[in-house]
Amino acid sequence: MRVVCSFFERTSKAVCQKTTRAFHDYPRFSKALAVSGGGLLTYYGTKLFLCSDSSLKDDRKRVIVLGTGWAGTSFLKNLDSTQYDVQVISPRNYFAFTPLLPSVTVGTVEARSIVEPIRNIIKKKAGNVGFLEAECYKIDAKNKKVHCRSSQKAGSEGKEEFIVDYDYLVVAMGARANTFNTPGVEEHTHFLKEIEDAQNIRRNVIDCFEKANLPNLSDEERKNNLHFVVVGGGPTGVEFAAELHDFIDEDLSKLYPTVKDYVKITLLEAADHILNMFDKRITTFAEEKFQRDGIDVKLGSMVVNVSDKTISTKERSTGEVHHVPYGMVVWSTGIGTRPVITNFMKEIGQANRRVLATDEWLRVDGCDNIYALGDCATINQRKVMDDIAAIFKKADKDNSGTITVAKLQEVIEDICERYPQVKLYMKNKHMKNIVALLEDSKGDDNKESKELDIERLKTALSAVDSQMKNLPATAQVAAQQGQYLAKCFNRMKECDQNPEGPLRIRDEGRHRFRPFRYRHLGQFAPLGGEQTAAQLPGDWVSIGHSSQWLWYSVYASKQVSWRNRLLVISDWGRRFVHGRDSSRL
Amino acid sequence: MRVVCSFFERTSKAVCQKTTRAFHDYPRFSKALAVSGGGLLTYYGTKLFLCSDSSLKDDRKRVIVLGTGWAGTSFLKNLDSTQYDVQVISPRNYFAFTPLLPSVTVGTVEARSIVEPIRNIIKKKAGNVGFLEAECYKIDAKNKKVHCRSSQKAGSEGKEEFIVDYDYLVVAMGARANTFNTPGVEEHTHFLKEIEDAQNIRRNVIDCFEKANLPNLSDEERKNNLHFVVVGGGPTGVEFAAELHDFIDEDLSKLYPTVKDYVKITLLEAADHILNMFDKRITTFAEEKFQRDGIDVKLGSMVVNVSDKTISTKERSTGEVHHVPYGMVVWSTGIGTRPVITNFMKEIGQANRRVLATDEWLRVDGCDNIYALGDCATINQRKVMDDIAAIFKKADKDNSGTITVAKLQEVIEDICERYPQVKLYMKNKHMKNIVALLEDSKGDDNKESKELDIERLKTALSAVDSQMKNLPATAQVAAQQGQYLAKCFNRMKECDQNPEGPLRIRDEGRHRFRPFRYRHLGQFAPLGGEQTAAQLPGDWVSIGHSSQWLWYSVYASKQVSWRNRLLVISDWGRRFVHGRDSSRL
Repeated sequence: MRVVCSFFERTSKAVCQKTTRAFHDYPRFSKALAVSGGGLLTYYGTKLFLCSDSSLKDDRKRVIVLGTGWAGTSFLKNLDSTQYDVQVISPRNYFAFTPLLPSVTVGTVEARSIVEPIRNIIKKKAGNVGFLEAECYKIDAKNKKVHCRSSQKAGSEGKEEFIVDYDYLVVAMGARANTFNTPGVEEHTHFLKEIEDAQNIRRNVIDCFEKANLPNLSDEERKNNLHFVVVGGGPTGVEFAAELHDFIDEDLSKLYPTVKDYVKITLLEAADHILNMFDKRITTFAEEKFQRDGIDVKLGSMVVNVSDKTISTKERSTGEVHHVPYGMVVWSTGIGTRPVITNFMKEIGQANRRVLATDEWLRVDGCDNIYALGDCATINQRKVMDDIAAIFKKADKDNSGTITVAKLQEVIEDICERYPQVKLYMKNKHMKNIVALLEDSKGDDNKESKELDIERLKTALSAVDSQMKNLPATAQVAAQQGQYLAKCFNRMKECDQNPEGPLRIRDEGRHRFRPFRYRHLGQFAPLGGEQTAAQLPGDWVSIGHSSQWLWYSVYASKQVSWRNRLLVISDWGRRFVHGRDSSRL
Repeated sequence: MRVVCSFFERTSKAVCQKTTRAFHDYPRFSKALAVSGGGLLTYYGTKLFLCSDSSLKDDRKRVIVLGTGWAGTSFLKNLDSTQYDVQVISPRNYFAFTPLLPSVTVGTVEARSIVEPIRNIIKKKAGNVGFLEAECYKIDAKNKKVHCRSSQKAGSEGKEEFIVDYDYLVVAMGARANTFNTPGVEEHTHFLKEIEDAQNIRRNVIDCFEKANLPNLSDEERKNNLHFVVVGGGPTGVEFAAELHDFIDEDLSKLYPTVKDYVKITLLEAADHILNMFDKRITTFAEEKFQRDGIDVKLGSMVVNVSDKTISTKERSTGEVHHVPYGMVVWSTGIGTRPVITNFMKEIGQANRRVLATDEWLRVDGCDNIYALGDCATINQRKVMDDIAAIFKKADKDNSGTITVAKLQEVIEDICERYPQVKLYMKNKHMKNIVALLEDSKGDDNKESKELDIERLKTALSAVDSQMKNLPATAQVAAQQGQYLAKCFNRMKECDQNPEGPLRIRDEGRHRFRPFRYRHLGQFAPLGGEQTAAQLPGDWVSIGHSSQWLWYSVYASKQVSWRNRLLVISDWGRRFVHGRDSSRL
């Protein structure tokens, strides 16, 4: 027993002693071993399982964080880890600054410059924080357990699995690439979501050039080998196409002078424009720039099949199908749900949804103590119209069946906080306050003392729910959610006693916390040639040289260590002096 | 045709026109395509072959360099490429500064910092120099062809192969790791010869730590997982063990505090000491340092088997066999012959040798126009005793059957140049000149006018061949050989007319070039903790902090670009500030 205690040396001695006593009390646990947080490791045959034993509980709650992406890392960084027993579980033992992934594909920055080992972050945190390099393959909400398996290559006995208990579970596992079930995509294309993807792409680009340079190829084969296809005209696809163009133009064309004229880059986008979440000015600029650069942008073109040598597309307008040979395909069309999340959703009755639904406090609908954030979740904002009766009742304190505007104004702040679409609607309609909203619904002169009934309120608010929209699946959203949730966790006890959230509309009292509110800091799309398009809040659009730095500094401000910043900047300097490295590593 | 001409745009127009004419002359070549250097690409079914056609020859000879290691790169860098058509063929499109490989295994320097793309070197060279990323799998000396295959993953039609003609072939393919046919080594251990090996080791070290940290392991399993075994006490093995110790001690122990006490490093050496090619002082220092560091050095311990979980060793003294569980084994016991070299040796009648034998001018014995250097070759120095009759005859110009010392002195310089063991022998015996050597063989007073017969000369020289020894398989030897051979190639025409080498002993005239002579610049063994042992010429031994820099600058002086130096130095700075990166990439 003592050995195990020393292994988990962060575990308090008290827990160890308690466990020892527990063994005496329950002889059937004689093979059990104490672990951090008061769980128990028990042998079942050759495998070990963690099981809970309430008698062993430390008074700190056990928090399991699944994932080390933007959401998980942001949560971890902001959490006051002295209040909880924290265990982070992820198959990746590092956080990756994903906006620079397209740069890694061509060596503008190195992979290691944009990652930060999770253990470096943990090292700086007080309290009991651990990391397990493993993949969670099952969330058992009923028994408050997660089932994990080591992400390392299977030994002779197969992958070893284990189970971890939690009091609070933070699901931040992100998403996977979405193939839309297109045949051949999984097998023959490169995704661009993980560091390994970027490294593989880099190797593959060089492979294509080296192969095209061999003497045993026909002209046609050389051309096919150097046909780079990017599927998806979102920011990632566009940035990759731009980076690849720059790499070829600035570096590879000098190193492979005999084959450079065979190179072609094609960008396929199923919609009518690339970057269609951006302002039209940016879209137009990007399309024109790509045309000048010789990148072939094919709009309205859907990929229907990918074989080992050709990619088949269907023109949306004509229905024509083309089969085009390629050297490499990068697939960047959006995100899909991980199987573990899909299974979890089935279990908790969210089978029909695309991603996990949470309430405005990031709690998974239907699950106590499970939170979900980042790309694997979406906030299921309540509709005003669904709650209109409760809202009316809240304002109608004397139960008269009518309310005055003055009375409504007493609760309007809580309503606006609970239903942000109300405020958004008023802002978009340039209304100053609720009086204007009520006036708008009916032409007559509305005084504050005027009595309203529920029908009148319904009419006034009937359109506000149209303002609801899901948050984009971006790093920015994930990082803000992580930070928000950590702050909630940090003040859990405090706010249990003094709730600071808005009035509960369908219930008594107040919500513990204010709901999560996303603050959009702008969106950026590097277009190659040192040019970045930036769309900032307030419809400010910037295209030019300086915004590359702006872009970096906005993202980098919180999540990224000084180490990463220095590394990235030194990579940029290195590239400036020596060009990008073309070694096939 | 024109397209192909433009593809090989470095090929002179004249060649293309010649080729076009050739097609008219030989209609059976109608599918042939011109390539650089005047060869021909011909279809045979779906595959393409290069075949020679003497009518197409440019007056520049075609030089094929196989390999981009120390020898090949050094040759390429020093060659006057305007005089030849040069084609470099290697499965690696970069040169790697291998002395820093052990540092790459733990991230003290990054892999990309120690490689230089071959095309960067080629870019700077005038004339017609090309690179093909392919592996030579057969050398056909009879027909002056090398058979190659693309080193990329097989497509649906399997690996594509091609054949390249040469006038001169420079074989610098290096060696592979030597397993001594120990069962399980190929499957279960890591070698440390290539960049990929170092990257895999780095990943594996982190894997071992992450795995040991999971809750589903027993104490015993944790211990086994963190048992790192290094086989081979040569400079590479020793340096790796030292680097690993530093990595764990300085970085990982802080990041994995719960498992750090389970770590064990074992260094297995079959001989009686580690670093046994070094001075005793260095060996002793290294052994004592490792003992202080807690590295378990097991001397006289031969590995007899490696399974997926245990390594079996046999004690040389007792014959006892031990089976020890391990987490990772790094195998660094010396070099073996590549299969392509073994096959080539069979073909040219060198089947019984370990490596390719060359003469003192690096020409492969029995092959015209094939040169071999670096780890795949060894110089077969002629013995004085084998040539003693010819040596005597050379001095005995009047065929009298006796020579005077004065007459011998006329040719002694050539003899010493041709047979360096003579000079080495005299130096070791502290003899001033040949007179002393002759005196030594017989006690009587020897005057310069004294007549000698062949038996007397034999007696005098009988012991000199004992001084012959093979050059070590080091980067230093390979680099010097590459430089030497390039200089020979650069002055081929000049020296054809005015030979500058020693007298041909068994023939008339002089050798074209002086034979290769190795200049030993010292040997270095980094021992971790910023300490490097240096053994310099003249028995100068240095152990300490400064020699690390000395070590680098000696090696780096010629072969390494300023780019690499800056990168390595910035890596060192990075490590100094932030420690080594522990992300599993």
